[in-house]
Amino acid sequence: MTKATASDARTEQGANGRQKMSIILYSGTVDRLTAAAILATGGAAMDMQVNIFLTFWGLLALKKGAWQDPQQQKISAEFAEYAPMIMEAVQANKVKPWIQLLREAREIGEVNVYACGMTMDLFGLTLDDMEDIVTDVQGVAGFVAEARDSAITLFI
Amino acid sequence: MTKATASDARTEQGANGRQKMSIILYSGTVDRLTAAAILATGGAAMDMQVNIFLTFWGLLALKKGAWQDPQQQKISAEFAEYAPMIMEAVQANKVKPWIQLLREAREIGEVNVYACGMTMDLFGLTLDDMEDIVTDVQGVAGFVAEARDSAITLFI
Amino acid sequence: MTKATASDARTEQGANGRQKMSIILYSGTVDRLTAAAILATGGAAMDMQVNIFLTFWGLLALKKGAWQDPQQQKISAEFAEYAPMIMEAVQANKVKPWIQLLREAREIGEVNVYACGMTMDLFGLTLDDMEDIVTDVQGVAGFVAEARDSAITLFI
Repeated sequence: MTKATASDARTEQGANGRQKMSIILYSGTVDRLTAAAILATGGAAMDMQVNIFLTFWGLLALKKGAWQDPQQQKISAEFAEYAPMIMEAVQANKVKPWIQLLREAREIGEVNVYACGMTMDLFGLTLDDMEDIVTDVQGVAGFVAEARDSAITLFI
Repeated sequence: MTKATASDARTEQGANGRQKMSIILYSGTVDRLTAAAILATGGAAMDMQVNIFLTFWGLLALKKGAWQDPQQQKISAEFAEYAPMIMEAVQANKVKPWIQLLREAREIGEVNVYACGMTMDLFGLTLDDMEDIVTDVQGVAGFVAEARDSAITLFI
Repeated sequence: MTKATASDARTEQGANGRQKMSIILYSGTVDRLTAAAILATGGAAMDMQVNIFLTFWGLLALKKGAWQDPQQQKISAEFAEYAPMIMEAVQANKVKPWIQLLREAREIGEVNVYACGMTMDLFGLTLDDMEDIVTDVQGVAGFVAEARDSAITLFI
């Protein structure tokens, strides 16, 4: 691993001149996944390079088909009473399903979705088990290297 | 939307020369709202421009009167056993109510509180429904534009 | 408190030339503590100076002995059904206990663990009550001053 220099920090943009937004997508509840997808959309719309690092519950949420399995659709525990209202809003198309928002963000701009290698090992998963928007496996050090060059880094 | 340049990122301060702190206030539990209010106070005390973007449960928490409605005062689910102790500490004035902390932060420095437009639509709210410290509605792209110029950005 | 200048923001590194990673460790569940410890390890491995600011539930988790008290080992409420699987993975050494990860991060690089003064007061704690990796008490303003000089700041 190479030593960081001040000039790395100053640049805060990729080789293509885009500023970066890094999201550690740790949470797996529908409400937080939706928030992450909307922020990724905002980043893409502002012409940023968005890098999403899926870990823990956020990674499980992107296992093939998990997003449409009712048993795996959770809302933050403290606000569970709003779950029916939110599911209804999604069904009435007032809010798009978070996975669709993520797919659309990838059409707007550059949105990369990486799976955390350590979590993949813990749950015995390979890329074949994941939705196809997950394109690569990444280690923590690699993610940190990208995040420290980012104009915005969020842990969601 | 304009393309970001490296010099935007380098500046990380407003027109008035203040560095910016951006907070996406997503959570709606009393404990996390308090943490956000204390961090906003710290930013204001350090002469930063603090921009709070209320979304999801964080936005509902700032509906008029919600902060004093016992039914809407929640503690993180995993630590619910501490709720009586925390409410007691607030009553004994060992900790100020989070909304009072936010009001005081606004007296110390520049603290702007924006409501997420998309969440307002989802819940059918207008600015009239919100506590008066919420001064404007903002879109995600507008928030991202501010956050990428910020020295600190937090998702709470 | 001194006024921030643009040059502070540009530097984003300590006196020793290291870039900084700042973590507000707010959460106290085993899964989030583990995520924080792994990110701190990644920062240390990338030769960053990592500063962890323990507050609320994150601070309680580092009270002496709390990490091995079964009653204080919680998993995010929405994913409680995974708790046995995770505890088993820890016992089978597939994942190290988060406190051991934190200790090891301190051997790899510079990882400072500070206790939030306000939370210490709220819970009536002193440094003697904390695990020995917690070396100092810090105020919010002090933490903000470090965070705004950091290449990465996370609220976990």
